[in-house]
Amino acid sequence: MSPQELQALMPSVFAPWIVAMEMELLESQPGSVRIRLPVKQEFIHVGEMMCGQAVMAAADTAMVLALINELGEFRPLTTAQLQTSFLRPITGDHCIVTAKILRRGRKLAFGSSDIANPDGRLAAQATGTLTLL
Amino acid sequence: MSPQELQALMPSVFAPWIVAMEMELLESQPGSVRIRLPVKQEFIHVGEMMCGQAVMAAADTAMVLALINELGEFRPLTTAQLQTSFLRPITGDHCIVTAKILRRGRKLAFGSSDIANPDGRLAAQATGTLTLL
Amino acid sequence: MSPQELQALMPSVFAPWIVAMEMELLESQPGSVRIRLPVKQEFIHVGEMMCGQAVMAAADTAMVLALINELGEFRPLTTAQLQTSFLRPITGDHCIVTAKILRRGRKLAFGSSDIANPDGRLAAQATGTLTLL
Amino acid sequence: MSPQELQALMPSVFAPWIVAMEMELLESQPGSVRIRLPVKQEFIHVGEMMCGQAVMAAADTAMVLALINELGEFRPLTTAQLQTSFLRPITGDHCIVTAKILRRGRKLAFGSSDIANPDGRLAAQATGTLTLL
Repeated sequence: MSPQELQALMPSVFAPWIVAMEMELLESQPGSVRIRLPVKQEFIHVGEMMCGQAVMAAADTAMVLALINELGEFRPLTTAQLQTSFLRPITGDHCIVTAKILRRGRKLAFGSSDIANPDGRLAAQATGTLTLL
Repeated sequence: MSPQELQALMPSVFAPWIVAMEMELLESQPGSVRIRLPVKQEFIHVGEMMCGQAVMAAADTAMVLALINELGEFRPLTTAQLQTSFLRPITGDHCIVTAKILRRGRKLAFGSSDIANPDGRLAAQATGTLTLL
Repeated sequence: MSPQELQALMPSVFAPWIVAMEMELLESQPGSVRIRLPVKQEFIHVGEMMCGQAVMAAADTAMVLALINELGEFRPLTTAQLQTSFLRPITGDHCIVTAKILRRGRKLAFGSSDIANPDGRLAAQATGTLTLL
Repeated sequence: MSPQELQALMPSVFAPWIVAMEMELLESQPGSVRIRLPVKQEFIHVGEMMCGQAVMAAADTAMVLALINELGEFRPLTTAQLQTSFLRPITGDHCIVTAKILRRGRKLAFGSSDIANPDGRLAAQATGTLTLL
């Protein structure tokens, strides 16, 4: 599926709260996506930095999109588990989320999401287990 | 700190996006908090269920509040790592998030958050590592 | 299954490397087990303390035994994911591993293992996802 | 440090139980190592496959070695948290563990370990948080 097709699918798959994050699909390959996440004012916490909750939400969403693109179509699926490590602050006005499916079985899939600053420095890394229903 | 004091602290600590979730502090003890998270319409995804991203955000937020309450005041801290397992759907109009600090060292703290349905059945469980800056 | 039955099952289920750890089944309930893990000399590392690798191995093994006891018999299953947090050193000559199944579905199960010092203080906590084959 | 120097360091840092795994250092760069882990008979479980416990132990050990090599010398450090996902069985008589440090701060470091089959197919992936004492 093209970035445009995945983008168009988002409102029918994800909660309005996630759609309102305004993630922008930049690239898609079977089993992987690259997404731009804007650092909106509402994501900024007391430390004057992007909050980790938005980073986790984007990491999960990108991994689901990567799996949809691996499958070639939307099918019912759910995240069983997500682990996120927060390495560095996100600076600047956006970050880049790169998600890929590491392994797809019949029932389970494993994926990872890297969240990087615009300069390419890794800010967070997530790994997850997804269930195909 | 009382539930009211922790509630009043939230807008100065968390991002507006998190404050808008309208988490309600029900109880607080040193090192633990109990919170009501409403299942708002904007959190509902295609499966007609509460999205996992909101569950993770609440789990992290509650763990931070539990640590603030362990410290007795707000001090700069950050989540280094959060792992969440999604056990069951959240049904009904709210869920209960119970967070506690399992261990506080000088630099690091470890916590857990249980997210339960109103009937008490566990919906998700998170564990995290927090850094005191 | 009784602690004795689970103990007797171990050599046919686990690798000899795990059996040689000499974990001792103390109690069993459907979906949970309590195990004594001796702090053998070969588990001690440079810090004069029990190594984390042995703690993870015991946490995983105990979770599998809890699932077998939830199922009531051995069935093919595998660990999809295990996350362990190391809270405190293990002191003394043994630790107690308490594993329980938090949720069992048709294909997936979720479990946790607490590893405690003999005085009851939590030394490590693990959560895992297990697949029923 | 060279692979030979790291190899020589192992008995003074790790528990005898880990040294007996006979991990072989193949390559080292600042912040990364590549290791050969033999699939010894004692690691094989009921499914006729390499047990996950040995994979976790090797993932952790390799990450610690990568951090020692990032530091340029052994300094007291400990694993705070390790998460491992098991993607595929390990087949053949050995696997290759590639660990790297993703981020080193003053107190905390983040690392990852990939465990691959000899043909390069990923069998497991681990991420961890390490504390510098």
